Amino acid sequence: MKKIVIFFEPMGRRVETHANRTILEVAREIGIGIRSDCGGLGLCGKCKIILTKVCGEVSKPTDNEYRFITPEELSLGYRLACQVRVLSGSVNVFIPRESRVEVGRRVVGVSVLSDEYFGLRPAVRKFHLKLPEPSLQDFRPDLERLRDALITLHVIDKESELQVPLDLLRMLPELVREFRWNLTVTMWHNKLISIEKGDTTRRMFGLAIDVGSSKILIHLVDLVTGKTIATDFVENPQLMYGEDIVTRITYASRSPENLRKLQRLVIEAINNVIAKMTSRAGIDVRDIYEAVVVGNSVMHHIFFGIVPKYIARSPYVPAVRRMISYPAKEVGLNINENGIVTSLPLIAGFVGADAVANLIATRIYESDEISLILDIGTNTEVLLGNSEIILAASAPSGPAFEGAQISCGMKAVAGAIESVQIDGSKVMYRTIGDLRPRGICGSGLIDLLAEMYRNKIIDERGKFVAVNNPRVIYDEVPRFIVVWKEESASGKNIAITARDIDELLLAKAAIRSGWTLLCKKLGIDPSDISKVYVAGSFGMHINVDNAISIGLLPPVDRAKVIFIGESAIIGARMALKSTEARRKAEDVVRNKVKYVELSADPEFRRIYIQSIPLNP
Amino acid sequence: MKKIVIFFEPMGRRVETHANRTILEVAREIGIGIRSDCGGLGLCGKCKIILTKVCGEVSKPTDNEYRFITPEELSLGYRLACQVRVLSGSVNVFIPRESRVEVGRRVVGVSVLSDEYFGLRPAVRKFHLKLPEPSLQDFRPDLERLRDALITLHVIDKESELQVPLDLLRMLPELVREFRWNLTVTMWHNKLISIEKGDTTRRMFGLAIDVGSSKILIHLVDLVTGKTIATDFVENPQLMYGEDIVTRITYASRSPENLRKLQRLVIEAINNVIAKMTSRAGIDVRDIYEAVVVGNSVMHHIFFGIVPKYIARSPYVPAVRRMISYPAKEVGLNINENGIVTSLPLIAGFVGADAVANLIATRIYESDEISLILDIGTNTEVLLGNSEIILAASAPSGPAFEGAQISCGMKAVAGAIESVQIDGSKVMYRTIGDLRPRGICGSGLIDLLAEMYRNKIIDERGKFVAVNNPRVIYDEVPRFIVVWKEESASGKNIAITARDIDELLLAKAAIRSGWTLLCKKLGIDPSDISKVYVAGSFGMHINVDNAISIGLLPPVDRAKVIFIGESAIIGARMALKSTEARRKAEDVVRNKVKYVELSADPEFRRIYIQSIPLNP
Repeated sequence: MKKIVIFFEPMGRRVETHANRTILEVAREIGIGIRSDCGGLGLCGKCKIILTKVCGEVSKPTDNEYRFITPEELSLGYRLACQVRVLSGSVNVFIPRESRVEVGRRVVGVSVLSDEYFGLRPAVRKFHLKLPEPSLQDFRPDLERLRDALITLHVIDKESELQVPLDLLRMLPELVREFRWNLTVTMWHNKLISIEKGDTTRRMFGLAIDVGSSKILIHLVDLVTGKTIATDFVENPQLMYGEDIVTRITYASRSPENLRKLQRLVIEAINNVIAKMTSRAGIDVRDIYEAVVVGNSVMHHIFFGIVPKYIARSPYVPAVRRMISYPAKEVGLNINENGIVTSLPLIAGFVGADAVANLIATRIYESDEISLILDIGTNTEVLLGNSEIILAASAPSGPAFEGAQISCGMKAVAGAIESVQIDGSKVMYRTIGDLRPRGICGSGLIDLLAEMYRNKIIDERGKFVAVNNPRVIYDEVPRFIVVWKEESASGKNIAITARDIDELLLAKAAIRSGWTLLCKKLGIDPSDISKVYVAGSFGMHINVDNAISIGLLPPVDRAKVIFIGESAIIGARMALKSTEARRKAEDVVRNKVKYVELSADPEFRRIYIQSIPLNP
Repeated sequence: MKKIVIFFEPMGRRVETHANRTILEVAREIGIGIRSDCGGLGLCGKCKIILTKVCGEVSKPTDNEYRFITPEELSLGYRLACQVRVLSGSVNVFIPRESRVEVGRRVVGVSVLSDEYFGLRPAVRKFHLKLPEPSLQDFRPDLERLRDALITLHVIDKESELQVPLDLLRMLPELVREFRWNLTVTMWHNKLISIEKGDTTRRMFGLAIDVGSSKILIHLVDLVTGKTIATDFVENPQLMYGEDIVTRITYASRSPENLRKLQRLVIEAINNVIAKMTSRAGIDVRDIYEAVVVGNSVMHHIFFGIVPKYIARSPYVPAVRRMISYPAKEVGLNINENGIVTSLPLIAGFVGADAVANLIATRIYESDEISLILDIGTNTEVLLGNSEIILAASAPSGPAFEGAQISCGMKAVAGAIESVQIDGSKVMYRTIGDLRPRGICGSGLIDLLAEMYRNKIIDERGKFVAVNNPRVIYDEVPRFIVVWKEESASGKNIAITARDIDELLLAKAAIRSGWTLLCKKLGIDPSDISKVYVAGSFGMHINVDNAISIGLLPPVDRAKVIFIGESAIIGARMALKSTEARRKAEDVVRNKVKYVELSADPEFRRIYIQSIPLNP
């Protein structure tokens, strides 16, 4: 097999591999993240790279490349990483910032919600014991000796089983004697998971993990004080295998090895963060005894290594819904060797444990008044209800508000336009990091829709109607220039096209029809909703009035709209800190939540179409 | 490092290794079993081998070798395998039958007891399910769909947890669809351990395993019919590391690797038998879902890989006493990949799960009358009681009745004298296999004691008192010639010495004082015992009258003495076939059995000494 060499810049990585592979494949293999919203099919054009030096031969541009790359760009060496193959010799590849897989700059894990409601009663508990030494008068076996002490302390019942991992039982006789019968046992419910020397009851930690499809949040919690002592995040490295979830499911479904690879990627990313966090905080990973994980159903399945294939196919069925707990070792998570990983329950294939975490964090199941929780993403989870019933649905909003499938769209990273105001032909905007603009992120797109409509640049159906506005260009596809090329980072106009607007209206319609249909089922008018919780970092920066005016959010008093930020991790933290919160989660999911499959609802189509216009 | 070569005969094995290692070490390493009662210390003389050819240099005979090897033998090439080292070149080593590790010839697993009392209600159950396919109207997750079906069949309660091994959950979505929702689930209590295509409810097997310190018995049971479809046994390969248990504990205690090695040895031996049995019976190992294991506490601990060290040290405490169950995978046992290994509970450090199996097999806990169970071995387990209380003790009888530490002693293998009658100077005997005699096994030794006393060759204290008996030689150590050299297999006299008789009297005294003390504690006379159960293959061939006359067994009507043979495996089989039997075992051990530590009892010493004479 012919060997070729690729240098990746600006990383400064050199790879020797065999010829005729795409640059995207090679980059993925060595863990260099290149955007690939379509999963490497040549359909999204987001994986542009620049061949800065070619000593040898590369493949000719494909039709797909000609669609996304201008002749000028081509002459500069631009290519699509998923299309170009190195046939011989060596190439230098530069990955521009736009094409790099990056995480939002936004502050992580911020929420207005508190995790203190349920108090501190974790599943993990520690007990310091001084056991009497065995003698010819008291020859109880080691484990029974320990068990009796736990019964005396009312930790376990006389009749209940005390589970012990085999590895721990194997060493038990040595441990208790080495510690001279003065030891601390760690219990997870009725399971003995650790035995330590002397009194270590002040050292007990847990993790809350929110596995998002693009970002993984991790909070390290002191389970003795209840305080969160460190928070961190990492990009979900599965992004390398496709921005959207369906692409990842497709990849995972191709072979058990692929699933295993995606699983390992996410676990390794988390393990790296754990190592970093614990070393900074000066604690030992062995003092972390439990991790509570939330995430959408697909992330949940991949995290545990469960085949996610059928979540993506009608009727969108996950493998399991209930809360599950497994040894961290079996999952691969690097905490105490007998530590446990617990996931909150799921609601359905597209309403996952993150939605349940939001329920716990907002406690809308306690109030008599009707509340709404929206978690806007490629699938927007919609929860509507009160102490009697909570309807749950997933609206297929697509990734438009995340900047994908929008020509000038981008994630909320440095250089993204995050807010826009229009006054006739004047456009005022603000970018993240106050940098030269590179594209427009979700909050900017919402503003843009509202402002273009208000300025009569488009009509309520999104059709360009402006006359004499110098920023509107009636080309093959009409467009509105948000930023002239002179101001932009790339030196090219940043524009929103009629096609982009259609995408955004459809996304908005999906979300709107979700809560509209649920309101209808509960027999209430959307304006009667007492509280609208908008979850996710997305919400933190949107203009509420604009979001209401384009019909994305229900027409309620803006004071009733609460942006709860990264609320899912708050819910995870509550579950980590309190078995009561877990029981509540299970109880609410089992007895109050009713899942509505929108695609199977006879009314959904009609409501969806009615929801498209900007002034519905 | 200098290389040397050893040829082992009659195995025909060639080994290249480095110089200066003992032949025993090398043999152990490649799995050739050479007797080594003392664990390779040069103290037992049982590891005699013959150097049939030496091309090179071997170490000079040690003092230990001179003690056990006559000059004549030495000239023939006899050496002790644990002493002789090959320094250079190559040697041919012949291992005589006496020195080979061999298993008794006796029929395995025979018992007068039936395993049918508790009926057929195994912990493993199978259910054939035809599940409705998911649809947009019925989008229950796969596991909940399965769970609901099990609830409908009353297999599990609505509220009870359904445990699923992670590996199984991971593949669940693929399995149920591949099987088109027509499948058989295997449950172990509330744990789902297997999912198979179509209806496999007629295929369900289990294993009963009795891990003896010298012999491992394995029964393969059809859990659908309750029939035992195959029985087999294998020598416990740990014998390579010492005949007696304390030697093995010492070896295991030296390092975790040593323990792991002993554990793997026993598991591998069992796996080999499983492979052989299943292939002969034409069944798949994956159709074996549970193994119930019994054995003494040390064998139990080593089987599971639990540190056995402290069982051998006062106060003789095991790590755990209760019934334990672990995934077969964690133990290494090759049955269904999610199969379970369960051990019956232990009673104490030297009264193990085999004794509990005997309790279940005899059900002495049901009768109002007092019964005795004796399991004679290096430690003799003594159980005495009725439906109210059962006293348990371990008598330190030593291995004399197994032929060890007796100059002419040997195990009950081919060529062993198994019964003896004396009429003055005439000796009549029978050997196993009707071969020329090689030595005397336990049943023969009992006869010999009784007959020598009856013929006034020895007095009640074992002192030689015969005059004019041509078979009695008053040498430095007086002896009685059982077989003249002309008749023996080795061409040497087979004799029993005064020292041998002392050993046997002490062994008898230990056993006798065990049941005497327990009778005293219950306030009964030994002659009041209603039934005497003698467990183990040992009992199958002893002469009851002689055993009673020398005081080994209590003075009861001989019809009350029942030899129950390999009863522990019957108890294991009962537990395999019935969860009720397990509950009973747990209940009896916890609520009826009271362990008496003989070494801590103030009366034991006195009773022991009183028990030494032949006519106590």
